[in-house]
Amino acid sequence: MDLNLRALTKVAGLLLVVLGGSMMLPLIVGLLYHEPESVRAFIVVIVPCLLAGGVLILIPGRQKSRFSIRDGYLIVTVSWALASLIGAIPFVLSGAIPSYVDAVFETCSGLSTTGASILPDIESLSKSILFWRSFTHWIGGMGILILAVALLPTLGIGGQFLAKAESPGPSLSKVTPKISDTAKMFYLLYCVYTVLEVILLMFGGMNLYDALIHTFGTVGTGGFSNYNNSIAHFDSAYIDGVITIFMFLSGGSYFLYFLVFRRGVKAFIQDGEFKTYLLIVAMATLLVTLGLWGFGIYPSPLSAFRYGVFSVVSIVTTTGFANSDFVLWPTFCQMVLFLLFFVGGCSSSTAGGIKPIRLLVMGKLIKRTVGLKLHPNAVNPLKVNNRILPVEVASGIAAFTFLYILLFFIGGILVSFDNTDLMTAFSAVGSCLGNIGPGFGAVGPMSNYSLFSDGSTIVLSFLMITGRLELFTVIILFTKKFWYPYG
Amino acid sequence: MDLNLRALTKVAGLLLVVLGGSMMLPLIVGLLYHEPESVRAFIVVIVPCLLAGGVLILIPGRQKSRFSIRDGYLIVTVSWALASLIGAIPFVLSGAIPSYVDAVFETCSGLSTTGASILPDIESLSKSILFWRSFTHWIGGMGILILAVALLPTLGIGGQFLAKAESPGPSLSKVTPKISDTAKMFYLLYCVYTVLEVILLMFGGMNLYDALIHTFGTVGTGGFSNYNNSIAHFDSAYIDGVITIFMFLSGGSYFLYFLVFRRGVKAFIQDGEFKTYLLIVAMATLLVTLGLWGFGIYPSPLSAFRYGVFSVVSIVTTTGFANSDFVLWPTFCQMVLFLLFFVGGCSSSTAGGIKPIRLLVMGKLIKRTVGLKLHPNAVNPLKVNNRILPVEVASGIAAFTFLYILLFFIGGILVSFDNTDLMTAFSAVGSCLGNIGPGFGAVGPMSNYSLFSDGSTIVLSFLMITGRLELFTVIILFTKKFWYPYG
Repeated sequence: MDLNLRALTKVAGLLLVVLGGSMMLPLIVGLLYHEPESVRAFIVVIVPCLLAGGVLILIPGRQKSRFSIRDGYLIVTVSWALASLIGAIPFVLSGAIPSYVDAVFETCSGLSTTGASILPDIESLSKSILFWRSFTHWIGGMGILILAVALLPTLGIGGQFLAKAESPGPSLSKVTPKISDTAKMFYLLYCVYTVLEVILLMFGGMNLYDALIHTFGTVGTGGFSNYNNSIAHFDSAYIDGVITIFMFLSGGSYFLYFLVFRRGVKAFIQDGEFKTYLLIVAMATLLVTLGLWGFGIYPSPLSAFRYGVFSVVSIVTTTGFANSDFVLWPTFCQMVLFLLFFVGGCSSSTAGGIKPIRLLVMGKLIKRTVGLKLHPNAVNPLKVNNRILPVEVASGIAAFTFLYILLFFIGGILVSFDNTDLMTAFSAVGSCLGNIGPGFGAVGPMSNYSLFSDGSTIVLSFLMITGRLELFTVIILFTKKFWYPYG
Repeated sequence: MDLNLRALTKVAGLLLVVLGGSMMLPLIVGLLYHEPESVRAFIVVIVPCLLAGGVLILIPGRQKSRFSIRDGYLIVTVSWALASLIGAIPFVLSGAIPSYVDAVFETCSGLSTTGASILPDIESLSKSILFWRSFTHWIGGMGILILAVALLPTLGIGGQFLAKAESPGPSLSKVTPKISDTAKMFYLLYCVYTVLEVILLMFGGMNLYDALIHTFGTVGTGGFSNYNNSIAHFDSAYIDGVITIFMFLSGGSYFLYFLVFRRGVKAFIQDGEFKTYLLIVAMATLLVTLGLWGFGIYPSPLSAFRYGVFSVVSIVTTTGFANSDFVLWPTFCQMVLFLLFFVGGCSSSTAGGIKPIRLLVMGKLIKRTVGLKLHPNAVNPLKVNNRILPVEVASGIAAFTFLYILLFFIGGILVSFDNTDLMTAFSAVGSCLGNIGPGFGAVGPMSNYSLFSDGSTIVLSFLMITGRLELFTVIILFTKKFWYPYG
């Protein structure tokens, strides 16, 4: 136990200040819409957050010069857990969600940009509470981008694992000025997307409040709406289109956008992950559209495409918005969507899931193994983006995927105690682990997670955070080696 | 195209002779029970099989001295396909199964030791036809043992992939006298199990015919019964027990039994795969038993254990016999059983599935990756059975598992065209690919596969053969590299 405790408390303090500061926005919303109960709830949380945060930052104490890897894992996981535990309080105090366990689920779902909800009737909540609920998506998305740039490469995990292989110049994770450059670009782009989408949605007839709510849900790839029927509420092809495009953009790699900015559009073509992402979205859209049209759900191919592409992009990018209730679709269309549960958006995006780059590597691994069966002595290295992928990286990717499946299975067993049907249990677990939101069966896009017991709610909350932090960051805390590195 | 065509035709001839010879047994059964239609059907197939087989073996032709790897893959896949196509004919000619596609499904299911059936009413069939149906399990099981010993190690695939690492003496696959020794042991043991189980089942009150049928289903890990209610028909704890034990033995590694014969019982303890197999069976049995008892399905813990252990062993060993209808069980128990769809019996057994040795390697890969996250520069080789596992082998295992999941997904999409519920489609595909037999939803242990269209029936037949031959053997034939190795 030689953890950098001083640094941990400092980060916790910073987190509290940021969290308290973030609640100022819904507080303002509450004041504007005259919601005294919600306003009181926010004030009661903001004040101690800022005070305690300030104290934790300012108290003197010997500080070690640097973070160790172990500090990093602990800080990331504790920050996400703490933010969920504290962010849940306003829901309880305002009376919006009476059960604290449910409130924590809702906040985990928000901060992890999942978008699964335990609320049977979203529209009964106050404007400020719904604003806070959706704003957690935006904060969470920003948080993941910070991690993607600043912390994860150092830890050797997460989306940026290919950064070293990809960037032709000096390694992204080693040159500090470059990190801060990249970081600024990421935040800037995140904000540009936000502003742009708000404007475009308002242009389609949304008021500012609705536009903000749905933009937070889109750019964070979260999926919380303030309407029970999600995007179907608006019934507008224009709004469907705008949100589809921004979901697709948000599920793409910010790192790639950064490269495009520097090297031009050819960076898109050179990127194996983006091509895989595009191919999967295109194929799935084609299949679902044909299915919806062929099985006669939408007689016009154009309508079939509108609802097909929206649902496909919504699931692949792990957003979870819905413009129609896909659990009522033919099994074929549902099957395609369910398989997309295991895809996810690109690395260094706000999306969750296994991610196309890992699927690409696994596909290449299969191809290579087939080749070796025929020519056992051939030299046949794994290549991604025209660069040789070290065996160590490939085996790490395989390990990630196996762990993903293992958590999916363990989660399935735990949640199945509630005796829902198998598909409901499976899809709830897959949806939460992949940070998607809706599932199948009783947890479809027009339903909610209120049917689960407190036990399952806690398991699903854990899976959302674990999925969000790319599994190992959280799972590593449960190993003996983490706590007794020299034992 | 420099395939050893002469050798291929010779093997095909041999196959026809063996197949024709095998049908002598059901022919005799038909004569004993006075079933003229079935007898005629068998004779009509046996005669041309023996004639054509004899001709193919005896026609002169320049024969190349040796098989290439490509010859090997082609021979194995073509043999299995041909045997299924010809073995299906008696079902059609006797009028038992009017549709040839359905008959091929039933024969694929038999020869691949799956045990999935398209027959809504098994008991309406003639004794000789039911005998042939179950005897295909026994032939298929024997065929897989032949492959495990003789061919697969040379091809570097299949159950024996760890043989080199495991056997402390000279490599199993290089010393020819040793191969034939091992092979003899395998066949002998297979026959010993067969005779022993027949005797023990007759001791429990079964007649010789029923005992033979259910022994074929057990030692081949197939699962065809001649009763609609499978083993539940007998409603005997003794019979349940005998079959449970023989299923467990048949799902264990024949190679390990061979080692035990040579080195004593300690070989069990030294074998990582067997320990994994035992651990999974024990854990799953505990969970299912507790579930059945806790949810009040069986008020007595002993009854819960009887039905729990039977179903767990039946699924893990990919047999598929049923002594109760587990689709009526609590979701928790069903979930455990469904996860076992992805386990399977040990390598070099007659069982299908991913197999415990692969799960063990994947578990170690996860553990190793976690270790490397904490200590990125640590030397941390993968070890199985106290021997270092080459990275090449580990990545082959990962590739197998990914291909397994990929086929599961593709199969799911194709079968979902039939618009059954998601769980029926998923479990049918998982069951066929893993050579298990029953599924969930509408294809439970007391139901059958007759609800599927011809298209799905063909897809599922393909998956059974592909799963049986450890994926790559079949999939490799669909690559360009196989047909144009120098192109």
